[in-house]
Amino acid sequence: SAPALSREATVAPAPNGIAIPKDYKTWQPLGVSHRTDKDSLRIILANPIATKAATEGKTNPWPDGSMLAKLAWKDSTHPNFAAATVPGELTHVEFMIRDSKKFADTNGWGYARWLGMEQKPYGNDAGFAQECSTCHLQAKETGYVFTRKAPLP
Amino acid sequence: SAPALSREATVAPAPNGIAIPKDYKTWQPLGVSHRTDKDSLRIILANPIATKAATEGKTNPWPDGSMLAKLAWKDSTHPNFAAATVPGELTHVEFMIRDSKKFADTNGWGYARWLGMEQKPYGNDAGFAQECSTCHLQAKETGYVFTRKAPLP
Ligand code: HEC
Ligand code: HEC
Repeated sequence: SAPALSREATVAPAPNGIAIPKDYKTWQPLGVSHRTDKDSLRIILANPIATKAATEGKTNPWPDGSMLAKLAWKDSTHPNFAAATVPGELTHVEFMIRDSKKFADTNGWGYARWLGMEQKPYGNDAGFAQECSTCHLQAKETGYVFTRKAPLP
Repeated sequence: SAPALSREATVAPAPNGIAIPKDYKTWQPLGVSHRTDKDSLRIILANPIATKAATEGKTNPWPDGSMLAKLAWKDSTHPNFAAATVPGELTHVEFMIRDSKKFADTNGWGYARWLGMEQKPYGNDAGFAQECSTCHLQAKETGYVFTRKAPLP
Protein backbone atom coordinates (compact mmCIF):
# COMPACT_ATOMS: atom_id res chain seq x y z
CA SER A 1 0.00 0.00 0.00
CA ALA A 2 1.13 3.55 -0.63
CA PRO A 3 1.83 4.60 2.99
CA ALA A 4 3.97 1.50 3.62
CA LEU A 5 6.03 2.15 0.50
CA SER A 6 6.67 5.78 1.32
CA ARG A 7 7.69 4.75 4.83
CA GLU A 8 10.26 2.29 3.40
CA ALA A 9 11.69 4.99 1.14
CA THR A 10 12.80 6.82 4.28
CA VAL A 11 14.53 3.88 5.97
CA ALA A 12 18.21 4.73 6.58
CA PRO A 13 20.72 2.43 4.86
CA ALA A 14 22.84 -0.07 6.78
CA PRO A 15 26.38 1.07 7.78
CA ASN A 16 27.77 -0.83 4.76
CA GLY A 17 25.56 1.20 2.40
CA ILE A 18 22.96 -1.50 1.69
CA ALA A 19 19.42 -0.10 1.35
CA ILE A 20 16.32 -2.03 2.35
CA PRO A 21 14.96 -3.85 -0.75
CA LYS A 22 11.69 -2.01 -1.49
CA ASP A 23 9.72 -4.94 -2.83
CA TYR A 24 10.65 -7.62 -0.30
CA LYS A 25 7.05 -8.07 0.86
CA THR A 26 6.21 -9.51 -2.57
CA TRP A 27 8.89 -12.23 -2.33
CA GLN A 28 7.84 -15.86 -1.85
CA PRO A 29 8.29 -17.83 1.34
CA LEU A 30 11.27 -20.21 1.25
CA GLY A 31 10.91 -21.48 4.80
CA VAL A 32 10.05 -20.84 8.40
CA SER A 33 11.96 -21.33 11.63
CA HIS A 34 11.38 -21.36 15.36
CA ARG A 35 14.51 -20.49 17.32
CA THR A 36 14.52 -22.04 20.77
CA ASP A 37 17.59 -19.95 21.78
CA LYS A 38 15.83 -16.67 20.99
CA ASP A 39 12.15 -17.60 21.56
CA SER A 40 11.50 -16.25 18.12
CA LEU A 41 9.51 -17.12 15.01
CA ARG A 42 10.93 -16.38 11.56
CA ILE A 43 9.73 -16.34 7.97
CA ILE A 44 12.40 -16.59 5.28
CA LEU A 45 11.52 -15.02 1.90
CA ALA A 46 13.32 -15.32 -1.44
CA ASN A 47 13.20 -12.99 -4.44
CA PRO A 48 12.33 -14.52 -7.86
CA ILE A 49 15.99 -15.25 -8.78
CA ALA A 50 16.61 -17.00 -5.45
CA THR A 51 13.27 -18.85 -5.57
CA LYS A 52 14.13 -20.22 -9.02
CA ALA A 53 17.64 -21.23 -7.89
CA ALA A 54 16.26 -22.99 -4.79
CA THR A 55 13.55 -24.78 -6.79
CA GLU A 56 16.10 -26.03 -9.29
CA GLY A 57 18.68 -26.83 -6.60
CA LYS A 58 21.26 -24.49 -8.18
CA THR A 59 22.42 -22.88 -4.96
CA ASN A 60 26.09 -23.65 -4.64
CA PRO A 61 26.88 -20.90 -5.40
CA TRP A 62 23.58 -18.99 -5.43
CA PRO A 63 23.36 -16.87 -8.61
CA ASP A 64 24.21 -13.16 -8.45
CA GLY A 65 20.99 -11.18 -7.93
CA SER A 66 19.62 -13.67 -5.39
CA MET A 67 18.14 -11.94 -2.35
CA LEU A 68 16.89 -13.51 0.87
CA ALA A 69 15.00 -11.89 3.72
CA LYS A 70 14.37 -13.06 7.25
CA LEU A 71 11.57 -11.50 9.31
CA ALA A 72 11.86 -12.24 13.05
CA TRP A 73 9.29 -11.82 15.82
CA LYS A 74 9.31 -12.55 19.55
CA ASP A 75 7.18 -15.57 20.51
CA SER A 76 3.68 -14.81 21.68
CA THR A 77 0.78 -17.11 22.63
CA HIS A 78 -2.42 -16.99 20.56
CA PRO A 79 -5.09 -15.37 22.77
CA ASN A 80 -7.76 -17.94 21.78
CA PHE A 81 -5.58 -21.02 21.29
CA ALA A 82 -2.84 -21.59 23.85
CA ALA A 83 -1.02 -24.34 21.90
CA ALA A 84 -0.27 -21.91 19.05
CA THR A 85 2.89 -19.81 19.33
CA VAL A 86 2.45 -16.82 17.02
CA PRO A 87 4.37 -13.63 16.14
CA GLY A 88 4.59 -11.00 18.88
CA GLU A 89 6.81 -7.93 18.65
CA LEU A 90 8.88 -7.58 15.46
CA THR A 91 12.56 -7.73 16.44
CA HIS A 92 14.24 -7.33 13.06
CA VAL A 93 14.19 -7.81 9.32
CA GLU A 94 17.45 -8.79 7.66
CA PHE A 95 18.75 -9.51 4.22
CA MET A 96 21.40 -11.36 2.23
CA ILE A 97 22.10 -9.96 -1.23
CA ARG A 98 24.23 -12.00 -3.65
CA ASP A 99 26.95 -10.22 -5.60
CA SER A 100 30.02 -12.43 -5.77
CA LYS A 101 32.36 -9.54 -6.73
CA LYS A 102 31.01 -6.64 -4.67
CA PHE A 103 30.72 -8.69 -1.49
CA ALA A 104 33.76 -10.94 -1.99
CA ASP A 105 34.96 -10.08 1.56
CA THR A 106 31.90 -11.80 3.03
CA ASN A 107 31.81 -14.84 0.73
CA GLY A 108 29.78 -13.10 -1.97
CA TRP A 109 26.85 -12.09 0.22
CA GLY A 110 25.98 -8.55 1.34
CA TYR A 111 24.41 -8.55 4.80
CA ALA A 112 22.08 -5.95 6.35
CA ARG A 113 19.67 -5.80 9.29
CA TRP A 114 17.08 -3.31 10.53
CA LEU A 115 15.70 -3.36 14.08
CA GLY A 116 12.07 -3.23 15.12
CA MET A 117 9.14 -1.29 13.71
CA GLU A 118 11.41 1.81 13.64
CA GLN A 119 13.72 -0.05 11.24
CA LYS A 120 16.89 1.24 12.88
CA PRO A 121 19.97 0.08 10.93
CA TYR A 122 22.01 -2.48 12.87
CA GLY A 123 25.78 -2.08 13.36
CA ASN A 124 28.14 0.78 14.20
CA ASP A 125 30.24 0.54 11.06
CA ALA A 126 30.59 -1.62 7.95
CA GLY A 127 32.46 -4.22 10.01
CA PHE A 128 29.19 -5.54 11.47
CA ALA A 129 28.80 -7.84 8.47
CA GLN A 130 31.73 -9.95 9.63
CA GLU A 131 29.58 -11.15 12.53
CA CYS A 132 26.88 -12.28 10.09
CA SER A 133 29.33 -13.82 7.66
CA THR A 134 31.18 -15.72 10.38
CA CYS A 135 28.05 -17.39 11.69
CA HIS A 136 26.84 -18.18 8.17
CA LEU A 137 30.10 -20.09 7.57
CA GLN A 138 28.28 -22.93 9.35
CA ALA A 139 26.08 -23.12 6.25
CA LYS A 140 29.00 -23.11 3.79
CA GLU A 141 27.94 -26.42 2.22
CA THR A 142 24.60 -24.87 1.19
CA GLY A 143 26.07 -21.65 -0.20
CA TYR A 144 26.19 -19.87 3.20
CA VAL A 145 22.39 -20.02 3.42
CA PHE A 146 20.89 -21.98 6.31
CA THR A 147 17.33 -22.27 5.01
CA ARG A 148 16.41 -25.17 2.76
CA LYS A 149 13.25 -24.82 0.66
CA ALA A 150 10.37 -26.20 2.73
CA PRO A 151 8.87 -29.27 0.99
CA LEU A 152 5.77 -28.52 -1.08
CA PRO A 153 4.44 -30.42 -4.14
CA SER B 1 7.25 -23.69 -12.46
CA ALA B 2 5.59 -25.66 -15.22
CA PRO B 3 5.93 -29.16 -13.70
CA ALA B 4 4.47 -27.98 -10.36
CA LEU B 5 1.48 -26.43 -12.10
CA SER B 6 0.70 -29.50 -14.14
CA ARG B 7 0.96 -31.62 -10.99
CA GLU B 8 -1.54 -29.35 -9.21
CA ALA B 9 -3.96 -29.63 -12.11
CA THR B 10 -4.31 -33.33 -11.28
CA VAL B 11 -5.02 -32.93 -7.54
CA ALA B 12 -8.41 -34.47 -6.69
CA PRO B 13 -10.98 -32.05 -5.22
CA ALA B 14 -12.04 -32.17 -1.56
CA PRO B 15 -15.23 -34.17 -0.75
CA ASN B 16 -17.18 -30.87 -0.68
CA GLY B 17 -16.11 -30.10 -4.26
CA ILE B 18 -13.51 -27.45 -3.46
CA ALA B 19 -10.48 -27.60 -5.78
CA ILE B 20 -6.98 -26.64 -4.71
CA PRO B 21 -6.39 -22.96 -5.59
CA LYS B 22 -3.81 -23.13 -8.39
CA ASP B 23 -1.93 -19.93 -7.61
CA TYR B 24 -1.64 -20.22 -3.82
CA LYS B 25 2.16 -20.28 -3.91
CA THR B 26 2.10 -16.68 -5.13
CA TRP B 27 0.05 -15.46 -2.13
CA GLN B 28 1.69 -13.31 0.52
CA PRO B 29 2.54 -14.47 4.04
CA LEU B 30 0.05 -13.30 6.67
CA GLY B 31 1.68 -15.05 9.60
CA VAL B 32 3.49 -18.03 11.00
CA SER B 33 2.74 -20.39 13.85
CA HIS B 34 4.44 -23.08 15.90
CA ARG B 35 1.97 -25.57 17.38
CA THR B 36 3.23 -27.13 20.58
CA ASP B 37 0.38 -29.70 20.56
CA LYS B 38 1.32 -30.98 17.09
CA ASP B 39 5.09 -30.26 16.99
CA SER B 40 4.43 -28.48 13.74
CA LEU B 41 5.47 -25.31 11.94
CA ARG B 42 2.97 -23.42 9.79
CA ILE B 43 3.01 -20.59 7.28
CA ILE B 44 -0.30 -18.81 6.69
CA LEU B 45 -0.73 -17.18 3.27
CA ALA B 46 -3.41 -14.75 2.07
CA ASN B 47 -4.54 -14.02 -1.49
CA PRO B 48 -4.55 -10.35 -2.64
CA ILE B 49 -8.18 -9.70 -1.51
CA ALA B 50 -7.50 -11.13 1.96
CA THR B 51 -4.12 -9.38 2.24
CA LYS B 52 -5.80 -6.04 1.48
CA ALA B 53 -8.60 -6.72 3.99
CA ALA B 54 -6.10 -7.70 6.71
CA THR B 55 -3.90 -4.66 6.03
CA GLU B 56 -6.90 -2.33 6.27
CA GLY B 57 -8.38 -4.21 9.24
CA LYS B 58 -11.63 -4.91 7.34
CA THR B 59 -11.96 -8.53 8.42
CA ASN B 60 -15.22 -8.81 10.30
CA PRO B 61 -16.57 -10.14 8.04
CA TRP B 62 -13.76 -10.88 5.60
CA PRO B 63 -14.82 -9.85 2.05
CA ASP B 64 -16.10 -12.49 -0.36
CA GLY B 65 -13.21 -13.72 -2.51
CA SER B 66 -10.78 -13.79 0.43
CA MET B 67 -8.70 -16.97 0.47
CA LEU B 68 -6.32 -18.17 3.17
CA ALA B 69 -3.88 -21.07 3.06
CA LYS B 70 -2.06 -22.86 5.81
CA LEU B 71 0.99 -25.02 5.02
CA ALA B 72 1.96 -27.36 7.87
CA TRP B 73 5.18 -29.32 8.40
CA LYS B 74 6.40 -31.63 11.17
CA ASP B 75 9.13 -30.07 13.33
CA SER B 76 12.68 -30.94 12.38
CA THR B 77 16.03 -29.73 13.75
CA HIS B 78 18.36 -27.81 11.47
CA PRO B 79 21.33 -30.13 10.74
CA ASN B 80 23.91 -27.34 11.25
CA PHE B 81 22.17 -25.29 13.92
CA ALA B 82 20.46 -27.22 16.70
CA ALA B 83 18.55 -24.24 18.16
CA ALA B 84 16.61 -23.79 14.90
CA THR B 85 13.42 -25.83 14.48
CA VAL B 86 12.69 -25.98 10.75
CA PRO B 87 10.17 -27.68 8.43
CA GLY B 88 10.40 -31.46 8.18
CA GLU B 89 7.82 -33.61 6.41
CA LEU B 90 4.83 -31.76 4.89
CA THR B 91 1.69 -32.92 6.72
CA HIS B 92 -0.99 -30.89 4.94
CA VAL B 93 -2.01 -27.79 3.08
CA GLU B 94 -5.45 -26.39 3.83
CA PHE B 95 -7.62 -23.53 2.73
CA MET B 96 -10.45 -21.23 3.74
CA ILE B 97 -12.38 -19.65 0.87
CA ARG B 98 -14.81 -16.84 1.63
CA ASP B 99 -18.24 -16.93 -0.03
CA SER B 100 -20.86 -15.82 2.46
CA LYS B 101 -23.77 -17.30 0.45
CA LYS B 102 -22.28 -20.53 -0.92
CA PHE B 103 -20.74 -21.53 2.41
CA ALA B 104 -23.43 -20.14 4.72
CA ASP B 105 -23.60 -23.52 6.55
CA THR B 106 -20.02 -23.05 7.77
CA ASN B 107 -20.22 -19.34 8.64
CA GLY B 108 -19.38 -18.18 5.14
CA TRP B 109 -16.08 -20.05 4.78
CA GLY B 110 -15.44 -23.05 2.53
CA TYR B 111 -12.89 -25.40 4.09
CA ALA B 112 -10.62 -27.91 2.34
CA ARG B 113 -7.47 -29.85 3.23
CA TRP B 114 -5.00 -32.04 1.31
CA LEU B 115 -2.61 -34.45 3.03
CA GLY B 116 1.12 -34.81 2.43
CA MET B 117 3.15 -34.55 -0.75
CA GLU B 118 0.55 -36.85 -2.43
CA GLN B 119 -2.10 -34.19 -1.76
CA LYS B 120 -4.75 -36.70 -0.75
CA PRO B 121 -8.09 -34.96 -0.11
CA TYR B 122 -9.05 -35.03 3.58
CA GLY B 123 -12.51 -36.19 4.73
CA ASN B 124 -14.87 -39.01 3.81
CA ASP B 125 -17.77 -36.81 2.77
CA ALA B 126 -18.74 -33.14 2.67
CA GLY B 127 -19.52 -33.26 6.39
CA PHE B 128 -15.80 -33.03 7.25
CA ALA B 129 -16.01 -29.24 7.07
CA GLN B 130 -18.12 -29.15 10.25
CA GLU B 131 -15.03 -30.22 12.18
CA CYS B 132 -13.07 -27.28 10.75
CA SER B 133 -15.89 -24.83 11.22
CA THR B 134 -16.55 -25.89 14.82
CA CYS B 135 -12.94 -25.33 15.87
CA HIS B 136 -12.77 -22.01 14.01
CA LEU B 137 -15.75 -20.79 16.10
CA GLN B 138 -13.09 -20.02 18.70
CA ALA B 139 -11.93 -17.25 16.33
CA LYS B 140 -15.43 -15.84 15.79
CA GLU B 141 -14.43 -12.37 17.00
CA THR B 142 -11.83 -12.13 14.21
CA GLY B 143 -14.10 -13.40 11.43
CA TYR B 144 -13.45 -17.12 12.15
CA VAL B 145 -9.77 -16.64 11.23
CA PHE B 146 -7.20 -17.30 13.94
CA THR B 147 -4.19 -15.63 12.30
CA ARG B 148 -3.60 -11.93 12.84
CA LYS B 149 -1.34 -10.13 10.37
CA ALA B 150 2.21 -10.37 11.73
CA PRO B 151 3.52 -6.86 12.54
CA LEU B 152 5.70 -5.35 9.79
CA PRO B 153 6.31 -1.65 9.02
C1 HEC C 1 24.64 -16.86 15.67
C2 HEC C 1 24.47 -17.21 14.28
C3 HEC C 1 23.99 -16.18 13.30
C4 HEC C 1 24.39 -14.87 13.15
C5 HEC C 1 25.39 -14.08 13.97
C6 HEC C 1 23.65 -14.36 12.02
N1 HEC C 1 22.84 -15.33 11.50
FE1 HEC C 1 21.61 -15.12 9.90
N2 HEC C 1 20.86 -16.99 10.25
C7 HEC C 1 21.26 -17.85 11.24
C8 HEC C 1 20.43 -19.03 11.20
C9 HEC C 1 20.54 -20.26 12.10
C10 HEC C 1 19.51 -18.85 10.17
C11 HEC C 1 18.39 -19.81 9.73
C12 HEC C 1 17.02 -19.22 10.10
C13 HEC C 1 16.78 -19.18 11.60
O1 HEC C 1 16.77 -20.24 12.22
O2 HEC C 1 16.64 -18.10 12.15
C14 HEC C 1 19.82 -17.56 9.58
C15 HEC C 1 19.15 -17.04 8.48
C16 HEC C 1 19.42 -15.81 7.91
C17 HEC C 1 18.77 -15.33 6.71
C18 HEC C 1 17.82 -16.14 5.83
C19 HEC C 1 18.67 -16.97 4.84
C20 HEC C 1 19.36 -18.17 5.52
O3 HEC C 1 20.62 -18.20 5.57
O4 HEC C 1 18.65 -19.06 6.01
C21 HEC C 1 19.23 -14.05 6.51
C22 HEC C 1 18.80 -13.13 5.38
C23 HEC C 1 20.17 -13.76 7.56
N3 HEC C 1 20.28 -14.87 8.39
C24 HEC C 1 20.86 -12.56 7.69
C25 HEC C 1 21.77 -12.31 8.72
C26 HEC C 1 22.40 -11.01 8.96
C27 HEC C 1 22.16 -9.77 8.13
C28 HEC C 1 23.20 -11.15 10.05
C29 HEC C 1 24.05 -10.14 10.74
C30 HEC C 1 23.60 -8.78 10.93
C31 HEC C 1 23.08 -12.53 10.48
N4 HEC C 1 22.22 -13.20 9.65
C32 HEC C 1 23.77 -13.06 11.56
C33 HEC C 1 22.31 -17.66 12.10
C34 HEC C 1 22.99 -16.44 12.27
C1 HEC D 1 -8.60 -28.17 16.80
C2 HEC D 1 -8.83 -26.88 16.18
C3 HEC D 1 -8.82 -26.75 14.69
C4 HEC D 1 -9.42 -27.55 13.74
C5 HEC D 1 -10.22 -28.82 13.92
C6 HEC D 1 -9.15 -26.92 12.45
N1 HEC D 1 -8.40 -25.79 12.61
FE1 HEC D 1 -7.77 -24.54 11.15
N2 HEC D 1 -6.68 -23.49 12.52
C7 HEC D 1 -6.64 -23.73 13.87
C8 HEC D 1 -5.69 -22.81 14.48
C9 HEC D 1 -5.34 -22.70 15.96
C10 HEC D 1 -5.17 -22.03 13.44
C11 HEC D 1 -4.11 -20.92 13.55
C12 HEC D 1 -2.79 -21.36 12.91
C13 HEC D 1 -2.13 -22.46 13.71
O1 HEC D 1 -1.76 -22.24 14.87
O2 HEC D 1 -1.97 -23.58 13.18
C14 HEC D 1 -5.84 -22.46 12.24
C15 HEC D 1 -5.63 -21.89 10.99
C16 HEC D 1 -6.21 -22.29 9.81
C17 HEC D 1 -6.04 -21.63 8.54
C18 HEC D 1 -5.31 -20.31 8.33
C19 HEC D 1 -6.31 -19.13 8.65
C20 HEC D 1 -6.56 -18.98 10.14
O3 HEC D 1 -7.72 -19.18 10.59
O4 HEC D 1 -5.62 -18.67 10.88
C21 HEC D 1 -6.73 -22.37 7.62
C22 HEC D 1 -6.81 -22.07 6.13
C23 HEC D 1 -7.34 -23.48 8.30
N3 HEC D 1 -7.02 -23.40 9.65
C24 HEC D 1 -8.12 -24.46 7.70
C25 HEC D 1 -8.70 -25.52 8.39
C26 HEC D 1 -9.39 -26.64 7.75
C27 HEC D 1 -9.60 -26.78 6.27
C28 HEC D 1 -9.79 -27.48 8.75
C29 HEC D 1 -10.54 -28.77 8.68
C30 HEC D 1 -10.23 -29.73 7.61
C31 HEC D 1 -9.35 -26.88 10.00
N4 HEC D 1 -8.70 -25.71 9.75
C32 HEC D 1 -9.58 -27.45 11.25
C33 HEC D 1 -7.38 -24.66 14.54
C34 HEC D 1 -8.16 -25.66 13.96
